[in-house]
Amino acid sequence: MKNNIPAELTKSINALAKLPGVGRVSAKRAVLHMLQDKSLIANLVENLTALEQNITTCQVCGNIATSEICDICQDEQRDSKLLCVVEGVSQLWAMESAESFGGKYFVLNGLLNALEGKGPDEIGITKLINLVQQNKVEEVILAISASVDGQTTTHVIAESLQTCDNVQVTSLAKGIPVGAGLDYMDSGTLFLALKNRNSL
Amino acid sequence: MKNNIPAELTKSINALAKLPGVGRVSAKRAVLHMLQDKSLIANLVENLTALEQNITTCQVCGNIATSEICDICQDEQRDSKLLCVVEGVSQLWAMESAESFGGKYFVLNGLLNALEGKGPDEIGITKLINLVQQNKVEEVILAISASVDGQTTTHVIAESLQTCDNVQVTSLAKGIPVGAGLDYMDSGTLFLALKNRNSL
Repeated sequence: MKNNIPAELTKSINALAKLPGVGRVSAKRAVLHMLQDKSLIANLVENLTALEQNITTCQVCGNIATSEICDICQDEQRDSKLLCVVEGVSQLWAMESAESFGGKYFVLNGLLNALEGKGPDEIGITKLINLVQQNKVEEVILAISASVDGQTTTHVIAESLQTCDNVQVTSLAKGIPVGAGLDYMDSGTLFLALKNRNSL
Repeated sequence: MKNNIPAELTKSINALAKLPGVGRVSAKRAVLHMLQDKSLIANLVENLTALEQNITTCQVCGNIATSEICDICQDEQRDSKLLCVVEGVSQLWAMESAESFGGKYFVLNGLLNALEGKGPDEIGITKLINLVQQNKVEEVILAISASVDGQTTTHVIAESLQTCDNVQVTSLAKGIPVGAGLDYMDSGTLFLALKNRNSL
């Protein structure tokens, strides 16, 4: 951007453009849009300030929460013997939106990645093992994506859980997504879908 | 989104998703990203607050400014006899980024649109005519997009400017954009590009 743009604008554009999924062009449009209706700015500032002050991390599972223990961990309707391990909050939300899981969660702090210095302690595997032992969890579902880092993480967690007694370790079924065309699937997915075929 | 998402989060996601170019998915990702590094929230809030408090509209041309008169209108190096009319601030920035215009600007408040109740007074045509007469402007360049509303607006402004003495009214050249393939051009553009061809 050239001169003649007030510094306040450039700074707000830069701050918005740092967010994932928002490029410089979107940030510029958003800022100009907000200047036409300044109540949008006040609204955003107010909500973000509330967010900054009130949101914390659940001490038990790593989910985001407004108190020390998140709503899911506090919910006694949920089966604490069934634990679903996800790599982030956004994956937890995806699982919840399916409305078909009645257990509790453990949210990893990302995936194992030697280059980024993320070992078992950094992503919370040690904490997970402790939780499984303390709560006498009976089944751990590893709902981790099938990327290279994801598969490493799944493998390491499965290994670590062998030290716990009477824990069954499972992972989500792999196959064709609902509504997807076969011709758009990669060969790895097709191989697994064929291997794990069901009788009708 | 399902329950179990704290209200503060939903509110911030909604506020972000109201911005043009930011959908719900981006807004969710952005909020989760900011929660991992809360300094991003503080930075954004600070900059937006400064924006809300310090940015106003230039009394002369309608550009955004930090004082009553914007930097461009105050700049005596610029030719005040040459006036470029644009439909918004974002188009002004685009013109400035080409670094090839040395005159001043007039920023319309959008385009004429009967359905949205935008008449000549609402978008600032009356103010433009006054400015042209007061400053004894010699050439008005109508840099307005070639949409239906844009063409109506261009036509109405050109008509209105006939009441001013000694004003030349021009518009930007239409043709093939630099680097674009002929096979991607619409027939209207091709027609104009052929009609306005230049000798080499």
